[in-house]
Amino acid sequence: MIIVMNKTATDADIKAVVDRLHSIGSEAHVSEGQYRTVIGALGDREAIRQLPWEAMSGVERAVPVMKPFKFVSRDFQPEDTVLQIRGATIGGGTFTAVAGPCAVESREQLFRTAEAVKAAGATVLRGDAFKPRTSPYSFQGLGEAGLEMLAEARETFDLPFVAEVLDPRDVGLVSSYADILRIGTRNMANFTLLTEVGRQPKPVLLKRGFTATIEEWLNAAEYIYKEGNHQIIMCERGIRTFETASRNTLDITAVPIVKGLSHLPVLVDPSHSGGRRELVAPLTRAAVAIGADAIMVDVHPTPDTAQVDGAQALLPSEFAELMESVRAIAGVVGLRV
Amino acid sequence: MIIVMNKTATDADIKAVVDRLHSIGSEAHVSEGQYRTVIGALGDREAIRQLPWEAMSGVERAVPVMKPFKFVSRDFQPEDTVLQIRGATIGGGTFTAVAGPCAVESREQLFRTAEAVKAAGATVLRGDAFKPRTSPYSFQGLGEAGLEMLAEARETFDLPFVAEVLDPRDVGLVSSYADILRIGTRNMANFTLLTEVGRQPKPVLLKRGFTATIEEWLNAAEYIYKEGNHQIIMCERGIRTFETASRNTLDITAVPIVKGLSHLPVLVDPSHSGGRRELVAPLTRAAVAIGADAIMVDVHPTPDTAQVDGAQALLPSEFAELMESVRAIAGVVGLRV
Amino acid sequence: MIIVMNKTATDADIKAVVDRLHSIGSEAHVSEGQYRTVIGALGDREAIRQLPWEAMSGVERAVPVMKPFKFVSRDFQPEDTVLQIRGATIGGGTFTAVAGPCAVESREQLFRTAEAVKAAGATVLRGDAFKPRTSPYSFQGLGEAGLEMLAEARETFDLPFVAEVLDPRDVGLVSSYADILRIGTRNMANFTLLTEVGRQPKPVLLKRGFTATIEEWLNAAEYIYKEGNHQIIMCERGIRTFETASRNTLDITAVPIVKGLSHLPVLVDPSHSGGRRELVAPLTRAAVAIGADAIMVDVHPTPDTAQVDGAQALLPSEFAELMESVRAIAGVVGLRV
Amino acid sequence: MIIVMNKTATDADIKAVVDRLHSIGSEAHVSEGQYRTVIGALGDREAIRQLPWEAMSGVERAVPVMKPFKFVSRDFQPEDTVLQIRGATIGGGTFTAVAGPCAVESREQLFRTAEAVKAAGATVLRGDAFKPRTSPYSFQGLGEAGLEMLAEARETFDLPFVAEVLDPRDVGLVSSYADILRIGTRNMANFTLLTEVGRQPKPVLLKRGFTATIEEWLNAAEYIYKEGNHQIIMCERGIRTFETASRNTLDITAVPIVKGLSHLPVLVDPSHSGGRRELVAPLTRAAVAIGADAIMVDVHPTPDTAQVDGAQALLPSEFAELMESVRAIAGVVGLRV
Repeated sequence: MIIVMNKTATDADIKAVVDRLHSIGSEAHVSEGQYRTVIGALGDREAIRQLPWEAMSGVERAVPVMKPFKFVSRDFQPEDTVLQIRGATIGGGTFTAVAGPCAVESREQLFRTAEAVKAAGATVLRGDAFKPRTSPYSFQGLGEAGLEMLAEARETFDLPFVAEVLDPRDVGLVSSYADILRIGTRNMANFTLLTEVGRQPKPVLLKRGFTATIEEWLNAAEYIYKEGNHQIIMCERGIRTFETASRNTLDITAVPIVKGLSHLPVLVDPSHSGGRRELVAPLTRAAVAIGADAIMVDVHPTPDTAQVDGAQALLPSEFAELMESVRAIAGVVGLRV
Repeated sequence: MIIVMNKTATDADIKAVVDRLHSIGSEAHVSEGQYRTVIGALGDREAIRQLPWEAMSGVERAVPVMKPFKFVSRDFQPEDTVLQIRGATIGGGTFTAVAGPCAVESREQLFRTAEAVKAAGATVLRGDAFKPRTSPYSFQGLGEAGLEMLAEARETFDLPFVAEVLDPRDVGLVSSYADILRIGTRNMANFTLLTEVGRQPKPVLLKRGFTATIEEWLNAAEYIYKEGNHQIIMCERGIRTFETASRNTLDITAVPIVKGLSHLPVLVDPSHSGGRRELVAPLTRAAVAIGADAIMVDVHPTPDTAQVDGAQALLPSEFAELMESVRAIAGVVGLRV
Repeated sequence: MIIVMNKTATDADIKAVVDRLHSIGSEAHVSEGQYRTVIGALGDREAIRQLPWEAMSGVERAVPVMKPFKFVSRDFQPEDTVLQIRGATIGGGTFTAVAGPCAVESREQLFRTAEAVKAAGATVLRGDAFKPRTSPYSFQGLGEAGLEMLAEARETFDLPFVAEVLDPRDVGLVSSYADILRIGTRNMANFTLLTEVGRQPKPVLLKRGFTATIEEWLNAAEYIYKEGNHQIIMCERGIRTFETASRNTLDITAVPIVKGLSHLPVLVDPSHSGGRRELVAPLTRAAVAIGADAIMVDVHPTPDTAQVDGAQALLPSEFAELMESVRAIAGVVGLRV
Repeated sequence: MIIVMNKTATDADIKAVVDRLHSIGSEAHVSEGQYRTVIGALGDREAIRQLPWEAMSGVERAVPVMKPFKFVSRDFQPEDTVLQIRGATIGGGTFTAVAGPCAVESREQLFRTAEAVKAAGATVLRGDAFKPRTSPYSFQGLGEAGLEMLAEARETFDLPFVAEVLDPRDVGLVSSYADILRIGTRNMANFTLLTEVGRQPKPVLLKRGFTATIEEWLNAAEYIYKEGNHQIIMCERGIRTFETASRNTLDITAVPIVKGLSHLPVLVDPSHSGGRRELVAPLTRAAVAIGADAIMVDVHPTPDTAQVDGAQALLPSEFAELMESVRAIAGVVGLRV
């Protein structure tokens, strides 16, 4: 931590900061510049971080030197985390496609989609039984019946599946069916839910909050990790900006940044980011080229009857076509498909 | 709903949209312009809104005419909602001050603060027993022990209190102690939590998500209202923008906008918005002048030892001084204090 | 400047940074922490700032301790700048109202408005002859004919006026008529224009870029100041955020922040910020309560025929009514009207 | 234009809107819904757009059906614009690399860089003689001497060059040297400068304002086009968001959106977007994969001595390596290199 004193800080103010650092067993390096005194704090970073330095008299600001997350950082584990999930691999130089309907609407809709995405090369199925909806009047998902259909599709098509969990009380239920638990963008900072999935024996796909910084997103992963669950996949799905021409702004830059800061694999969701069908293929190709470990794409046999997000769903044929260029680009950037 | 067809839409595309509107019992008004055909949809707005118009062939975009929320709108209830909470009034032309520590840290800290804010004119006490923290390594609150201290302070100082609830499983517990349940900014779109507090007999203070639009915030209130709980207070507490000079950007404009769209009272939290002590008094005065029904201010007897957000807490003496100018401004804009 | 080395920085990397600091006559304070080495740079801040520290091997980031602006800071001049403009005072504890039409459209429109705002208590007239418009097909202003009308209105009603200048080639022309030159929000970072108005003997009203940080805005003022023109008024007029319910988000927090960082007076433009008539009065009251030195309000005798921004213009009668509460609030916060 | 009346609009309000539409020769289609009356306006879109509908009594909002730009839209010209510039091609299925130093600092620095980027496959040279700098104390460029060096480098290495123009008074000068004029991100809404370059016989590279919507950016292109200059290249270079881990957030989604809305070629600047050297190669690969027509990359022989933006410049060897994967990806997405 670097503590910058303000111009009018007194010697007593500076001494109070130094004394407080000493009281927690830390060292203080004081540099007196022409305009400001700067105090470098060295010692136990958690102990230093907890104190309210900016509330002390004469302190202008406190600048952390270290990131607040630890276990999910590359400082802690330099080599990539690689997940093995019922035959599918995520991370470590393999490229993986996750695909399926946004929401499970019926057995037929799910099975037609699962069969098609499997044929096109997807190795993980997506499909939700619980949907968080902005309006209370929108379709909220089929609940456990949807999970049962997903489990049946898994057996039929030999595809592990990922499904969202919304409520800490449902974590056990969803975990008893799904192969991967998904934390949605609105729940990235729902710390009770993060703690709960951190205690499950299933991998977690952690969507970035659409208004979360990368640092906050990695902090959320840290919540899961420190409970004992180290199988975490980071999912970039677009952030909220002033631009309204697309539903969200895909923060493609986040992919190399997270892969630099952390050992966890990174997946991109081009469907929820763009929000429009014609953007899905270009965004997917960009995600592969930049080095994402995986993509997750909404596919629906009849998008114009979809109960959720039909405007962004690819037809099975469109997905199959997309997968061809995806494989070619993955090869160029050195990923196994 | 207004459905704008794209330039290359065919007659069959237009007919398909019209037929679909008819199939749900709605009317279609077709206007053919020089460049675009526009279809006005008239009928049951929920039925129309549910269909994926933008997934249909030839549709460029669908523009809703009506807001998605209903019960919380002024269209539904023109007169102000006024809440009576153990002697305190919120809304309807009364100005109310809520104050207290960000987090309950000890009985002594709480009682010293409660006594001071009561003396200065606050009529509701704040204090949290459960804290959502970005880092898993930060102080997370005293839990039920904190609620017990708050209940004791209520009796001692005759001050109803508001406390945050984070987890749907804790709603009953917090509701058994607190006079007002608070939904924090990170949980504004936690729909399972909203549904749960919507079933309680206690008023809810609903903080705006720091990245939520006003429309999304009112949708969140609708979730609570439609479960049967009509006692809702909207809390503006700053939004995330590109500006980093303050912790958040107080969206002061949201106050008159929400009061125009909705009958619910609006409270402003200047402490969490600015994030720095010297900004609290100016922001509070602006909130009163613009017509907020209430303010909520962090007060701490010794901010430089605070375990949460010490940098933004006022000293009791600073709060008392602020309340004097607050009363004067409230008088100018026609509010009872 | 504080230079944080990354985890894998070598001794040679650290030495290279230290040597470079020495080469420009600066001191280097090296602190070796458990995870990172941090180097404090002390010396001529401009010389240090110019070097590309983050391009050097082993450097993680460079954190400036000082703000980049100098002359406009309170560090440089602790007392408020106060401007005297043909009988009007801006800054130093006086509250000033600037009002008039967004654009000059005709002599009659201008004179009707000027007469009304004078009667209501405005002491500076606004009105533009050159308008920057997003679309090339919109009305672009009357040019010099508009300036002549403004000059005539000044004499008739004894009101100094402010007018926008868009083009460095027009600075001399506008300056020969106007009492205050305005730099619009789109030109805040037009450094050639800033330099040009910095050479004029007229005060400059510098609007904040709607996407500029406070630091960038003060840097823009520094451009003007260092050319020799010290008469600068900072104008907050709303920033671009994700919220679309208002045209812009008024960053009311910027008022106390700028007044803390700088000695320059701060004016708020509630009209361009909110973009809707019903928001103007509440936003104006908030601006006065938070301590702005001045406000600038669009007034038009017939807003529904206005060629620019009619939706946000007040009627003369609405402005007169607003001024009454403005005076009362200004009194509460200790300003002379 | 669709005009939505508010709930309390009277028959007279509706009639006034209809009459006004008739007065400009337009048709009005009135649809009375259960809660709102909606009026569709059909006729000359520019005439309709100019009127202040939202200032009229009873009007809730006016929703444009058409985009405000015309000539630069695909509605106006369905086929791609392709530029031929001294042997280089931009647009129409060819992929082009523009590279060179951010700023010209010396003849030696420029020539070393030009030689290297030419060898690696760049067909256009970049290099600036005028630099817009946030701080007035930073290096501002070599001026005409820099343009002379660029012209000499062009002849020596047979590379057309692009250079920024900042001031309308310098347009003739820069245009007399450069092959492509660049409008920087801070000047995208400098309409006097846009008008001036619109009168030159040289292509214009139009950077997106870092806070401009796609619609505003295309409006800026319309300013240039309507003056007679149809040779425009759109440059995406990152937008300002809440995320601070990268300098800007590259809006990669803008590439397919602009190519859908407009016939103009789109170039991506990965260097200024990311702001850090290690992000340049991944962002460039994403830009090529998503279908950008060109990229523009900062290259410097010794980044740690660069006077501008050294932290983001690639070494010549890094650029050469990047170009190999770029060519491979371009091939996959069907572009000629």
